[in-house]
Amino acid sequence: MKEKKEKAVKTKVEILCEVSARHVHLSAEHLEILFGKGAQLTEVKPLSQPGQYLAEQRVDLVTDKTTFKNVAVLGPTRAKTQVELSRTDCFALGLKTVPVRQSGDLAGTPGVKLRNGDKEVAIEEGVIVGMRHVHLDDKFAATHDIKDNQIVSIKIQGERGGTLKNAVARVHPSFAPAIHIDTDEANAMGFTTGTAIIKAKS
Amino acid sequence: MKEKKEKAVKTKVEILCEVSARHVHLSAEHLEILFGKGAQLTEVKPLSQPGQYLAEQRVDLVTDKTTFKNVAVLGPTRAKTQVELSRTDCFALGLKTVPVRQSGDLAGTPGVKLRNGDKEVAIEEGVIVGMRHVHLDDKFAATHDIKDNQIVSIKIQGERGGTLKNAVARVHPSFAPAIHIDTDEANAMGFTTGTAIIKAKS
Repeated sequence: MKEKKEKAVKTKVEILCEVSARHVHLSAEHLEILFGKGAQLTEVKPLSQPGQYLAEQRVDLVTDKTTFKNVAVLGPTRAKTQVELSRTDCFALGLKTVPVRQSGDLAGTPGVKLRNGDKEVAIEEGVIVGMRHVHLDDKFAATHDIKDNQIVSIKIQGERGGTLKNAVARVHPSFAPAIHIDTDEANAMGFTTGTAIIKAKS
Repeated sequence: MKEKKEKAVKTKVEILCEVSARHVHLSAEHLEILFGKGAQLTEVKPLSQPGQYLAEQRVDLVTDKTTFKNVAVLGPTRAKTQVELSRTDCFALGLKTVPVRQSGDLAGTPGVKLRNGDKEVAIEEGVIVGMRHVHLDDKFAATHDIKDNQIVSIKIQGERGGTLKNAVARVHPSFAPAIHIDTDEANAMGFTTGTAIIKAKS
């Protein structure tokens, strides 16, 4: 019985679950290349994470195989340009070596061409399939005994529900509690909008 | 402790897991409309289920929103034409009301237009998102104490693994053991090819 106890679920808590469609984070340098000198991102809609927003600006993603037009750009700008795709998107674009990564972990990832009208920039790296993750503020995380970078499971309910393992918890004072899964994960689980359950083991 | 025991996993067995991309089963009538009087499906490649095969013939799926060209047709013909899509496919085609269904359970499902060159047929119903399922022959099912139509879970291993609940076991003498998931499920789980684990509770 001891072994079973050690594996027991310690934390089980239901929070907002959001579906991330394909999107781009631009560096200030690439924003200027694509939208002109001195260009600033314009906020259209705030996202669940404080300070993050959907920008008015959109870009095309271009490969030899196809073009995704009008892909969402999220602001504010970041130190490095990052393109987050679902695995389905990667197949459609013919990008065969895109790893599952945490945001910001871009070393060795493939690049892609970004285009706005007649302006374009080819990034050498920065394309990832976003690792499923959970944003938590410090207080919420402490209350539920979840640490930054802890691996947790996400339980999705419903007729096509199940459990997504190996999600990473990211804890920061500026975060708000929210699970982020991508469109493949949402579609596989029959999830559209609502809440899901984080399970963390001791 | 009694309650826990009743919920315990009874069966856990690893078998072939296959990924079903979008495909069409044609009725003999629709095969003739699309490919001419007396047309027969031509086998290109056998599938894991005895007697089932990928056909040489392919069809386009046409909606007001887009066209999927050269969609696979699986043989032999069936009593009713059936189109199996992923949820991602449904969004791309603009089909908003496609239910998750077992193969053959087509009442009340939406239709779509099928095209081969200048020949086409619009089906009134028959479009489904295939419910994840497990084919088992009688002997295998009996050995592992799984009944026809029993709901089981599918455990996918790997960095993006997890558990897909509410899969249905289909037991028939003509079947071979194989789990069938769709491209959304495979992409969400980082699964390409190999085996997965069926878990059945008592």
